[in-house]
Amino acid sequence: MAHANAPYLGKDLLGLEELSREQIGAILDTAEAFKEISNRPIKKVPVLRGKTIVNAFFENSTRTRVSFEFAQKRLSADTVNISSTGSSVAKGETLVDTARNLEAMNIDMVVIRHGASGSARFLAERIASNVVNAGDGKHEHPTQGLLDLLTIRDHRGPLQGLRVCICGDVLHSRVARSNIHGLRTMGAEVGVCGPLTLLPRDVQTLGVTVFRRIEEAIEWADVLNVLRLQLERMKGGFIPSLREYNRVFGVTRERVERAPRDILILHPGPMNRGVEIDSDVADGPHSVILQQVTNGVAVRMAVLYLLAGGVPDHAEAAKTGGES
Amino acid sequence: MAHANAPYLGKDLLGLEELSREQIGAILDTAEAFKEISNRPIKKVPVLRGKTIVNAFFENSTRTRVSFEFAQKRLSADTVNISSTGSSVAKGETLVDTARNLEAMNIDMVVIRHGASGSARFLAERIASNVVNAGDGKHEHPTQGLLDLLTIRDHRGPLQGLRVCICGDVLHSRVARSNIHGLRTMGAEVGVCGPLTLLPRDVQTLGVTVFRRIEEAIEWADVLNVLRLQLERMKGGFIPSLREYNRVFGVTRERVERAPRDILILHPGPMNRGVEIDSDVADGPHSVILQQVTNGVAVRMAVLYLLAGGVPDHAEAAKTGGES
Amino acid sequence: MAHANAPYLGKDLLGLEELSREQIGAILDTAEAFKEISNRPIKKVPVLRGKTIVNAFFENSTRTRVSFEFAQKRLSADTVNISSTGSSVAKGETLVDTARNLEAMNIDMVVIRHGASGSARFLAERIASNVVNAGDGKHEHPTQGLLDLLTIRDHRGPLQGLRVCICGDVLHSRVARSNIHGLRTMGAEVGVCGPLTLLPRDVQTLGVTVFRRIEEAIEWADVLNVLRLQLERMKGGFIPSLREYNRVFGVTRERVERAPRDILILHPGPMNRGVEIDSDVADGPHSVILQQVTNGVAVRMAVLYLLAGGVPDHAEAAKTGGES
Repeated sequence: MAHANAPYLGKDLLGLEELSREQIGAILDTAEAFKEISNRPIKKVPVLRGKTIVNAFFENSTRTRVSFEFAQKRLSADTVNISSTGSSVAKGETLVDTARNLEAMNIDMVVIRHGASGSARFLAERIASNVVNAGDGKHEHPTQGLLDLLTIRDHRGPLQGLRVCICGDVLHSRVARSNIHGLRTMGAEVGVCGPLTLLPRDVQTLGVTVFRRIEEAIEWADVLNVLRLQLERMKGGFIPSLREYNRVFGVTRERVERAPRDILILHPGPMNRGVEIDSDVADGPHSVILQQVTNGVAVRMAVLYLLAGGVPDHAEAAKTGGES
Repeated sequence: MAHANAPYLGKDLLGLEELSREQIGAILDTAEAFKEISNRPIKKVPVLRGKTIVNAFFENSTRTRVSFEFAQKRLSADTVNISSTGSSVAKGETLVDTARNLEAMNIDMVVIRHGASGSARFLAERIASNVVNAGDGKHEHPTQGLLDLLTIRDHRGPLQGLRVCICGDVLHSRVARSNIHGLRTMGAEVGVCGPLTLLPRDVQTLGVTVFRRIEEAIEWADVLNVLRLQLERMKGGFIPSLREYNRVFGVTRERVERAPRDILILHPGPMNRGVEIDSDVADGPHSVILQQVTNGVAVRMAVLYLLAGGVPDHAEAAKTGGES
Repeated sequence: MAHANAPYLGKDLLGLEELSREQIGAILDTAEAFKEISNRPIKKVPVLRGKTIVNAFFENSTRTRVSFEFAQKRLSADTVNISSTGSSVAKGETLVDTARNLEAMNIDMVVIRHGASGSARFLAERIASNVVNAGDGKHEHPTQGLLDLLTIRDHRGPLQGLRVCICGDVLHSRVARSNIHGLRTMGAEVGVCGPLTLLPRDVQTLGVTVFRRIEEAIEWADVLNVLRLQLERMKGGFIPSLREYNRVFGVTRERVERAPRDILILHPGPMNRGVEIDSDVADGPHSVILQQVTNGVAVRMAVLYLLAGGVPDHAEAAKTGGES
C-alpha cells in the first residue's frame, strides 16, 4: 500500500497548482468524512496502523506540526519528529542525504517544512516514500490551502463563482499561492489586496483581480482570507509602520460592518491582533478562524489516508476500522 | 466524558488552594490504586485511549514533563509536546490564541507550565478542555504538592496533626505554596524555615509557623520538605553565598542526626547537593526523594483519570481494562 | 522480564569490547530475523508493549535517535525523549540524579548519548534499568559497530578472515573503536588509514595494521569503512585543509576503481561529500551506505529485544506476536 502511487493523488502532495478539480474535491469530501473522528470520545481509527511517518520541520511551527501529529495519531500511525536544531542538517548534511537516510529506515511518509521554495519537490523526486509539503519557502502550503477551501465550502457551499480576496503580504506568502491555485481550480474568483510592495509584480498573470484599497476588496468579496503580516517586513522597508499598515489595510470592525453582504473572514494564524486584523473581527460573528484549525486536522487526515492508497468512497468504512 | 466537569475535581486542576479535603483524599486514594500499574511488566491500561493531550511547557522541565508523559502513555493517551522554542508563542501569538487553536483541534486536555503566575487559570477560563497546572510562576505546582502529600502519607499515615516544615526559598516557590495549602487542608501543621529575604512578608497569614534557624525546624518537625535553591538568587542578592547558605540553612547529616524523632526528608528536585541538602542526607535513610518521583507518575495518572471523568471507586476496575 | 540480566547480553550494551563472539553473533542473527518487520505493510510487533524507554540524547543526533525511536515503536514500546536543552542537566543536576529519577519512574531502559567517554557505564552501574550506549565521547558506539558488522556480513558472508580498513579520524572516533573491537572479535583483520595526527598513538596495541597511504589501504582491504571527518578538526590543526585531506586521503572513484577486488564501501554518516568520500563513490556500485541505515533499525530492535530478556531462537516467534 505504502510507497505506491495513490490512485487519487499520485505519490506526493506538493502543491495545489498540480491538482485537478476532481482531486481537490476528493480530498475535501474525504476530509468531510473524517471530521467526525475528532469528535468521538475515542479519537482513533486504525487506518495507518504500523505506518511510520517523519515530520521534518526545518522551520519552526507549532500549529502545523501539532495538527499533522494529531492527524497521524488519530489514524494510528507511528511518528517521529525532527527539527533543524540538532539535526544532521545542522552538521552540514545535504537534504538529499537526510531524505535517503530516512527512506532507508523504511519510512512510509515524510511531512516536510523547509525554508527553500521547491524543497518538497526536490525531496519527492529523490525518495520513494510519500512526501507531503507542509510549507516550502514562498512556494506553497497545500494543506493550508485545502483547509481554507474546506472551511469556505462548509459555510458558503460550492466554491464555483464565489469571490475570495486574499489580503496582505501576498508576495511572501505560500498560503496565498496555495489559495490562489486551489480557489481558481475550483472555479472561484480570486482577488488580492495589499500594498504594492507586498504584491508580486506579475500578480495579474495569476488570474486575480488586484485591489489597492481594503474597502474596495470588502465591497467586492464574499470571503476575505487575511494573511499574517510578518513583522520583520517592517524592518525590510516593505511597510512604513505597523500602525500605518493597520490604518490603511487592517481588517477592522468598522470596515467589515460596511460590507454589502455577509462576509466570511479567514486567517491562517498566528494572528497579529491590531495589525492585519482587529480582535473585534477575529473573535466576531464573521470569523471562521477556529473552524479553519479544526478543519486542518481533518484535511491532513484525508491527505495522509489518500496518499497511503485510501479510496475516498471507502473513507466511511475506514472510520469504523473496517479497513486498515 | 471529556470536556465535562469531573464529578470529583471540576474541569481543571489549577492549585491545591481550591481543593477540599475530600477531593485531595480522592486523588491520593486513586493514585495509590494506580501505583501498581507502573510495576507491571506491561505498564499500560486503556483508560485514556484515543484521548488527545497537549503538554505545553513554556518553561523548561525534564522531570515534570517526562513524568506527565509516562503517566499519559501508561493510560494509553495520545500526546503531543510543545515548548516555547519554536512555538507560535515565540512568533508573538497570545497565550489565548495558542490555547484556542489547540482546543479547535479537539484536544481533550492541556498540561501547561508557564512562567506567569495565574496563566493556568487564565487558560482554563477560556477553553473547554481540561487544564492541568504543571507550574505557573510563583503560584502553584499542584501535582508536586500532591505527590509530596502522598509520599508523606505512605510513610507516616494520615496527615492530620503531622508537623511538616518547608525549608528554603519559600518566597519564590510554587512548590511551597502548593504544599502549604494541601498540607493545611489535610490537617497538618506547617512550618517554614529560611532566610528572611526568602520568606514572603505575609508568611504568617498563611497559617504557618516561622523558624529562623534550621536546627529549630528540625527539632520541631516530623517531615522536612527541602526546596531547591535557585542559584540565580545569589546574584539577586537574596543570599550572601552558596557556602554561607549551606552553613546556616543546609540540611546536613550532623543536623539531621540531632533530630529528636525519625524525621522524613523530601526534596522536589533537581537538588543542589552541598547547598540546600548534603549528599549524605539526600541518599541517606531518612530520604524519600526517589519515592516522590515514583509517586509523581501515580499522582499524575490519578489526576488525568479523575479529570477525564473517572470515579475513584472505579480506579481498580479501570486498571484491569474493564473501563476505558 | 525487564531489569533482569538478559541471558544473552547481560543488563546493558555499553561497548563491543566486552562482547564475546557468540554474543555478537546472536545479536546479528536476531537482527537478521527482525529485518523483515520493517518491510511489512504494518511495521509493528508487540514485543515491547507497555515497556517504557527514555532516549536521553545529551549530544545532538538525528539519525541515531530516529533509528532508535523507530526500532522502539516497531516493537510497540512507549518512548520519551530528553535532550540536553531544557533538561534538568542544564539546571546543574548530576547525571546520576537524572538517571535515578528516570529509574524511579519505573523506566525499563535508557538509551544514552553523551559527550563524556564512560558516561554510559557510569549510568549503567548506578541504575537497575537496562542501559544502551548510543555513543559516549570517544569511547564506543556499539550499535553503529553492530550495524556495520551486519552490513558487511550481508554482503561478504562470515567476517572471519575478511580485511576491513577504517579510514580517517580514528583518533576521535567511537565508531572506529566499536568497529575495531567487534571486527577483531569476529575474526576479521583490521587496518586503519589516516594522517598520523588522526591516529591514536598506541594504535598498534589495538591489533590493527596501520596504512599511511589510502592507495595501500585500498589495495589491501576487502572493505573500507570511511569515517566522517569532523570539520572542526581543521581548526584544531589536525589537518592542513579539507582540499588537502581529500587529495591525500579522499576515497575517490579513481582510487576505488584501482582496487584489486570488489571492495565494499561503508560510511557511518553524515557524509562530507567531496572531503573524506566523493559522491561518485558514496552513490556508486560499491557503496552499502544506505543498507547500513536500514540495518541500523534491525540491529537496534535486536538489542532492545535481547536486553528485555528475549531469546534469539524465539525471535521468529516474537515477530508474529506470539511472544510479548
